[in-house]
Amino acid sequence: MTDSMNQFVYPVRVHIEDTDFSGVVYHANYLNYMERARSEWADMVGMGIDWQRGHHIFLVVHSAELVFKSPARLHENLRVLTKVVQLGKASLTYEQKLHLDGAEQKSLCEAKIKVACVDQNMRPCALPDSVFLDQIRRGLT
Amino acid sequence: MTDSMNQFVYPVRVHIEDTDFSGVVYHANYLNYMERARSEWADMVGMGIDWQRGHHIFLVVHSAELVFKSPARLHENLRVLTKVVQLGKASLTYEQKLHLDGAEQKSLCEAKIKVACVDQNMRPCALPDSVFLDQIRRGLT
Amino acid sequence: MTDSMNQFVYPVRVHIEDTDFSGVVYHANYLNYMERARSEWADMVGMGIDWQRGHHIFLVVHSAELVFKSPARLHENLRVLTKVVQLGKASLTYEQKLHLDGAEQKSLCEAKIKVACVDQNMRPCALPDSVFLDQIRRGLT
Amino acid sequence: MTDSMNQFVYPVRVHIEDTDFSGVVYHANYLNYMERARSEWADMVGMGIDWQRGHHIFLVVHSAELVFKSPARLHENLRVLTKVVQLGKASLTYEQKLHLDGAEQKSLCEAKIKVACVDQNMRPCALPDSVFLDQIRRGLT
Repeated sequence: MTDSMNQFVYPVRVHIEDTDFSGVVYHANYLNYMERARSEWADMVGMGIDWQRGHHIFLVVHSAELVFKSPARLHENLRVLTKVVQLGKASLTYEQKLHLDGAEQKSLCEAKIKVACVDQNMRPCALPDSVFLDQIRRGLT
Repeated sequence: MTDSMNQFVYPVRVHIEDTDFSGVVYHANYLNYMERARSEWADMVGMGIDWQRGHHIFLVVHSAELVFKSPARLHENLRVLTKVVQLGKASLTYEQKLHLDGAEQKSLCEAKIKVACVDQNMRPCALPDSVFLDQIRRGLT
Repeated sequence: MTDSMNQFVYPVRVHIEDTDFSGVVYHANYLNYMERARSEWADMVGMGIDWQRGHHIFLVVHSAELVFKSPARLHENLRVLTKVVQLGKASLTYEQKLHLDGAEQKSLCEAKIKVACVDQNMRPCALPDSVFLDQIRRGLT
Repeated sequence: MTDSMNQFVYPVRVHIEDTDFSGVVYHANYLNYMERARSEWADMVGMGIDWQRGHHIFLVVHSAELVFKSPARLHENLRVLTKVVQLGKASLTYEQKLHLDGAEQKSLCEAKIKVACVDQNMRPCALPDSVFLDQIRRGLT
């Protein structure tokens, strides 16, 4: 996998349900947008829910750092850029940026999300083998 | 059970997450408020999640009729009144009213919710025996 | 406008945030899906938020009837079919059906939603003139 | 104000709407719980929405760091502990911990949230005078 493949672009449309009384998107909902992008990517690269179930593991959010730079508004078309920046034995760390479609240089929200691999009892465990993770590992070295 | 026992009052506080860009509570969130009241009541009368799991059944919403009469606003204290109005072999029908605390005569939202009993395969099945349902049955006759 | 134009198809993807502990979509979230479809349609036919603001009115949900027929699940691709079935002086009534992409004959949720036109003080008022409403009126007669 | 006054305890009840298909609370919803606690505190100490509107400012979330330590489950009673740990000219930083009622020593989620004061155009501006902030300032020195 080339460096450029470690990047996923996911479109998001802002709906009324995402906004709050201040007129813009409620801050916690940016975490939803970020999660949608990661889940769809996981699905695409063969590490989706079925793969997780098949290996008796779950990928759960361990920690998140978010910076809210500028608010998103109703009916805007957004894009989430997602990239794996760190890969441990039992965790994956993503960097994600949200921007208006057509304005990639100005991000509205930036996040660093660490996802941990846990077993059925919610104990940390090693990530199962995965072609995608191998590719990421090679891309990162 | 006397008639007056077939009534449950549940308090709700409006949070920012419940509002939308129009400044008031987003309409779908009234269904959440109604559901909280029914679930807490179910729990209280011994028909909560554990009881459902123990009988290998689920109580799921089959249908809902809602009338939105007046909007609820941020940081208002609301109350949901809940009452069973019909009791079938495999279903329960509730009437629920939401009003501002201290203004019971003016409801903000009124709902009629039919909850169905289903088995693990989501097929309709008879409601298990329950002291509460017996009391309701007697109260309704 | 021909009859066939009074129909809008809107795609919905089920995300984790839409599901609940029972494993399927939380019932209130179907109202979100229905609202997205109506809002996008309103936008498309020139009756979106900007048009509403320009006429100092809002279109608000007055009442809703929902039947939940079969649950939607994580990562399913759904479609909402939306149709205006009644048009009053100060209200619009929609019929909406949600189904799995590729399985239009089997709806998961059906709704009848009445939307009212209100002024800045939330009082009912006449719908402003609109090319789309004229077309609907002709289509319905 | 004594040190012990710079601490606010807020109760949260987990509802079905907060959970996701994995059976526990969806991660983004912890941000909601944290926000409820901050908003209610702001209200209580005289810096709520009305105060903000009166000064033509808003308090918006600037950044958030979250660590998810252990999942919360349906119908659990939680508590959010909230404390101001830093006070700038135009920002407030909070530390917040979420734990099960009766198990304060084991937090489920920990957050550090920076809230910025912005004017009507969403530009950073100085926090208005406030008795509470004065007390915090004295308590922090």
